[in-house]
Amino acid sequence: VAEYPALDFLREAAGLPEGSGVTFVSGASRANLSALTVARDVGRARLGSSDARVRIAMSDDAHSSIGKALHILDVEPFLVTTDDHRFTRGALEAALAADPHPESVVGVAATAGTTNAGIVDDLEGLGAYCREHDLWFHVDGAYGGAAMLSRTHGHLFEGLRHADSFIVDPHKWLFAPLDSCALLYRNPTVARTVLAQQAGYLDVLHEASDENYDWNPSDFGIHLSRRARGLPFWFSLCTNGVEAYRSAVQRGIDLARWTAVAIESSDQLELVRPAGLSVVLFRRRGWDAARYNAWSQALLSRQIAFVTPTKWEGETVGRLAFLHPDTTEELVTEILDSTRD
Amino acid sequence: VAEYPALDFLREAAGLPEGSGVTFVSGASRANLSALTVARDVGRARLGSSDARVRIAMSDDAHSSIGKALHILDVEPFLVTTDDHRFTRGALEAALAADPHPESVVGVAATAGTTNAGIVDDLEGLGAYCREHDLWFHVDGAYGGAAMLSRTHGHLFEGLRHADSFIVDPHKWLFAPLDSCALLYRNPTVARTVLAQQAGYLDVLHEASDENYDWNPSDFGIHLSRRARGLPFWFSLCTNGVEAYRSAVQRGIDLARWTAVAIESSDQLELVRPAGLSVVLFRRRGWDAARYNAWSQALLSRQIAFVTPTKWEGETVGRLAFLHPDTTEELVTEILDSTRD
Repeated sequence: VAEYPALDFLREAAGLPEGSGVTFVSGASRANLSALTVARDVGRARLGSSDARVRIAMSDDAHSSIGKALHILDVEPFLVTTDDHRFTRGALEAALAADPHPESVVGVAATAGTTNAGIVDDLEGLGAYCREHDLWFHVDGAYGGAAMLSRTHGHLFEGLRHADSFIVDPHKWLFAPLDSCALLYRNPTVARTVLAQQAGYLDVLHEASDENYDWNPSDFGIHLSRRARGLPFWFSLCTNGVEAYRSAVQRGIDLARWTAVAIESSDQLELVRPAGLSVVLFRRRGWDAARYNAWSQALLSRQIAFVTPTKWEGETVGRLAFLHPDTTEELVTEILDSTRD
Repeated sequence: VAEYPALDFLREAAGLPEGSGVTFVSGASRANLSALTVARDVGRARLGSSDARVRIAMSDDAHSSIGKALHILDVEPFLVTTDDHRFTRGALEAALAADPHPESVVGVAATAGTTNAGIVDDLEGLGAYCREHDLWFHVDGAYGGAAMLSRTHGHLFEGLRHADSFIVDPHKWLFAPLDSCALLYRNPTVARTVLAQQAGYLDVLHEASDENYDWNPSDFGIHLSRRARGLPFWFSLCTNGVEAYRSAVQRGIDLARWTAVAIESSDQLELVRPAGLSVVLFRRRGWDAARYNAWSQALLSRQIAFVTPTKWEGETVGRLAFLHPDTTEELVTEILDSTRD
């Protein structure tokens, strides 16, 4: 299947062992749900009860689909208070030490590049903790996972090698068309045990024995019929080469850092925090939510840029997220200048 | 949004009230999971406890994705023994009467055209029971729902008007390309309450008040980013007209009935049961599973037909499922003749 080399490229970039792998699904919401279903069932099996109440650790900055997945799965979130929005091993250990039932926490959901601010959690620390304590380590890299290819920021992703499951959307920062989300498992056989559907009319697909199992991408997500979602990404990777991807991802990061400097030197703007991967949060002095929204609408209707405000610690702020490698400093300057009176 | 007229066509065909509706997702596995998530949470709310153990009634003949969805949702299946594989109101009432905790059953998942045999459950009886007892009524019409357009079999689908949620795959018997599954809710607001994701970076999509809610298809399924999956179906419907759909669906049903007669008049074959919608199950006297598989492989490698055997009551049998309206009696005759020695 021509999708597998594409998955294998991602597996190798993530530092996961050979034999990891699996499938492309339609988006990160579904991929997170698929992976966390496996995490829950593996955790319950470890606790020796198929309906044990289990919890999975996450931070407030995790993507909304993580919380939604846990709700669907009947898994209580073990919400860890983070130090400046980055989920660390220290924060996890402190939260577990303060909890009366730490044994019910069976997994950790970390984020490799938060949607709102591009923050990469402490993958190395959290992953090592999970390995030491036999917890499931899930990493949501839907947006930010692509930065594992970055020359300057790749080291933030070294902890990915500990992941039991890892997702990244080629349709975000890997420049593939909608809809394509890569879902990788360290141990695909475990995922298949949890997720594969059984039925008389499917037996023809399942006849092979476990040893001769003929890989079926439908067995590893919450789906049966599926499009070959990995192909456009693979074709583009073959055509453009890995270096083109590395430099295109790097360009977004470099432009975010350039933009942060430009904001700091501006009169009317200030940085909310340092650039995170390719995301920059900024404050326009004196603006309320209505002003941010009007500005955003004007940029869109003038066809300059699609820049929507976000909320940061309760405050409406501006947010620039760079993905396209051809975005220019001139365009950014035009956007920043448009915040003047 | 141009997808909505397509959904409205399906809503009207199903006899659901105006205001029902919602979204297209990538397939029936996800649509069933989305709908049953809402069913579970509505049921729990009715029982007054957000983590009550609830059950949903289903029959053994429901599609494998229903059981998988209930597993993911931590909902115990209330398995109802059916009379000849058709899930009826009588069977449901008998099962509930024999159960010590019928109040924990908060919904019913019926099938409008089982995958294996094309059987349409007692939608009228089950639906009326659900209305009377305030249970969620979900109808999985992934394959068979299209037959609500049939002149001869449309009456089997009249009970769809009771549905709280209903799914049908345009990418199956409504001739649309993968991947497109329509997911309809009687009360979309309830579904949104359960499924919509909340986040600072999404507020820009959610700013409108409930009264001015600007319909967002991402709020009604387990997804955020999505392709406009309803468009190919809608364009084809506009181009070909409703009558073309009615006659194309009818053709599959008529051909199945013709095939059943041909099988009954054959020496080496016998019908397992009457044709169900466009599905025919048959037995080749004297064949074991290996013979069926070899025959199926030969038909495929000779590029005659893709006809896979299935299991029926534990026995491997032949299965013909007609979807393409241009399949001819001559081709069916060739397939049936190929089962001679």
